[in-house]
Amino acid sequence: MIGSLTEPQRRNVIGAHSGAYALLRALAIASGSLSPAHKPDLADTHPAVPIGPHPQWTEPGKIVSLDPWGHVAAEAFAADIRDGLDIRPTIAVTRAFLHFPELREAIAAGRLRPDARILRDDGEVACVKVAVEPVWHLPGIAERCGIDESVLRRALFSQSGGMFPELVTRDDLEVFLPPIGGTTLYIFGDIEAIADPGRPLACRVHDECNGSDVFGSDICTCRPYLTHGVEVCIETAQAGGAGLIAYNRKEGRGLGEVTKFLVYNARKRHKDGDTAANYFARTECVAGVQDVRFQELMPDVLHWLGITRIDRFVSMSDMKYEPLVRQGIEVVERVPIPDELIPADARVEIDAKKAAGYFSPEPTDVDLNNVKGRDWDSASS
Amino acid sequence: MIGSLTEPQRRNVIGAHSGAYALLRALAIASGSLSPAHKPDLADTHPAVPIGPHPQWTEPGKIVSLDPWGHVAAEAFAADIRDGLDIRPTIAVTRAFLHFPELREAIAAGRLRPDARILRDDGEVACVKVAVEPVWHLPGIAERCGIDESVLRRALFSQSGGMFPELVTRDDLEVFLPPIGGTTLYIFGDIEAIADPGRPLACRVHDECNGSDVFGSDICTCRPYLTHGVEVCIETAQAGGAGLIAYNRKEGRGLGEVTKFLVYNARKRHKDGDTAANYFARTECVAGVQDVRFQELMPDVLHWLGITRIDRFVSMSDMKYEPLVRQGIEVVERVPIPDELIPADARVEIDAKKAAGYFSPEPTDVDLNNVKGRDWDSASS
Repeated sequence: MIGSLTEPQRRNVIGAHSGAYALLRALAIASGSLSPAHKPDLADTHPAVPIGPHPQWTEPGKIVSLDPWGHVAAEAFAADIRDGLDIRPTIAVTRAFLHFPELREAIAAGRLRPDARILRDDGEVACVKVAVEPVWHLPGIAERCGIDESVLRRALFSQSGGMFPELVTRDDLEVFLPPIGGTTLYIFGDIEAIADPGRPLACRVHDECNGSDVFGSDICTCRPYLTHGVEVCIETAQAGGAGLIAYNRKEGRGLGEVTKFLVYNARKRHKDGDTAANYFARTECVAGVQDVRFQELMPDVLHWLGITRIDRFVSMSDMKYEPLVRQGIEVVERVPIPDELIPADARVEIDAKKAAGYFSPEPTDVDLNNVKGRDWDSASS
Repeated sequence: MIGSLTEPQRRNVIGAHSGAYALLRALAIASGSLSPAHKPDLADTHPAVPIGPHPQWTEPGKIVSLDPWGHVAAEAFAADIRDGLDIRPTIAVTRAFLHFPELREAIAAGRLRPDARILRDDGEVACVKVAVEPVWHLPGIAERCGIDESVLRRALFSQSGGMFPELVTRDDLEVFLPPIGGTTLYIFGDIEAIADPGRPLACRVHDECNGSDVFGSDICTCRPYLTHGVEVCIETAQAGGAGLIAYNRKEGRGLGEVTKFLVYNARKRHKDGDTAANYFARTECVAGVQDVRFQELMPDVLHWLGITRIDRFVSMSDMKYEPLVRQGIEVVERVPIPDELIPADARVEIDAKKAAGYFSPEPTDVDLNNVKGRDWDSASS
């Protein structure tokens, strides 16, 4: 796959590397700070741990939104690169050591026990992390989403404001590097355990919510559910298995943060208050659709890791659960967010989602008109 | 500004709304879940607090990378929208209540004192938050970056892999909605204080680092500096002023996370170890450039808020400081990250940056070859 621009005539894909960051690289070239002829020196950048190959990599239609060989591009095509071909990785595998204040609290509360290997006394966690750029195989994307490929290509071109005419003029090019955000994987425990059906696996698929994940907003459960997911991953890794967090850049259900904040305003100003009953309707009024996250594509990163079964899936979302099952990944248990982790104002979100078919171990019989969020001017309860 | 696609013939910009998320919207239309004719119902979505107008909004060349009227589009063009024009906001202003574990620690340590208004006993902070989508005025961007406009347009087109031919064919269209991430502003204290030179202002300009901001990686200072910035913002708001965090989606210095992780690998595998002396060189080998964040455009959000002076700038970066000063914003004091907040393995980054001209209250005389990061296989010190 040649998506670099140093020799445009050698390209065999539509788009450019680095997702949405391609445009900043273009600006760097325009301003003269980056040479358009630069080819990366990939010495010592290879994966910190080996991943794959797994049978899913070569099964037709199994992986359509990433390049399964994206992390080994420099080694697999070493001879071509030496001959001058500018082939670049679309996946990078490294190691990291993480510190979550919530894990220190979990240790203090006795919920987690340090083991000196995965979790240290000071709450530090060792992990392998993987950055994955989107690489779309257009025929595969069309099939997965149940769309005719030419309809897909035309819509991507016209509804993006005319981005990449090659989408419609070059149907010989099947691969598209879309300018959107990718996925980061955080893997806890033995990397070998991930694909081993004999060992337990915990997994949370988390879609970016910057306002909660970083800034701790009280209107949703995103960060609390994420850190609970890390806890479950650590427990499962300590029990001889592994844990996986897949973090997807799909802010505001893929609608972006401006739409999300507009919806917050419309919810808080509704004449009946911010009720669970009106939760989804407000998004649909503003955006015309409740969600554009395309969870049908989400299982690809799990296939890439060779996963066939998740023992503890840390999510209540049917929108995530069903595509996994449809893609042949067994989900044994679904782990809800513990009640005590739900911020006061996030009750609206959780109850609206449960009523809409969100998985819940207990039946839901709350009156959604009575589940109201805080007013902006009130203190939280 | 008409960037919507319901009536393509009325468009007067290049690109589409929602930054990089435009492509997921296009996919939703392709799959039939979103009608291409949908126009947003913007009832009740208007700003939670008024912002502006400020003199900077009409000063030529002062704001080139966002639309200063982007948050009031629905009101300013109410008659046109009623007549059927599909004009959409590019900025959304809402309120939020935040919970940071680090603020609870700051209260427990006596560094912060709750006041029942800005900071509550349980550590909850009230704020106004603003999502800003990028809107590029191409002649203004070219001038700010010191590039000929036609060179800029050609590079954006060709170096992105042929994105948006209108960049080169339609020089009558001066506005471009680029498919990149935007900025989120978090404002603490009285919103009126922000633009009032008689009241103190604290500010941190923070560039996204998902691995630290969300996952607490120990290799950099991003989240600790961010939460320290929130602390300084709260102190300043409690002293009768205001605080501002500007959070920019510029992962890995604008190079993206795959490049960032490749660089981590190359640093950790360097024959002399991961030393401060080699810190920048590794990025340059892989990416061809150290940084593509284009901080020259960063002051725009501050101009939009009417800011003329920052009393406490919570950053040591000259790359951020100098564009602010060049843009006529006075910076009184630069607040370094407290030493005790620097993770052990992030010493490499901080010392490399100080040696490269990062602001530091004390002179730097460390030997950069002796500042080494941890090996992957060692426990942290």
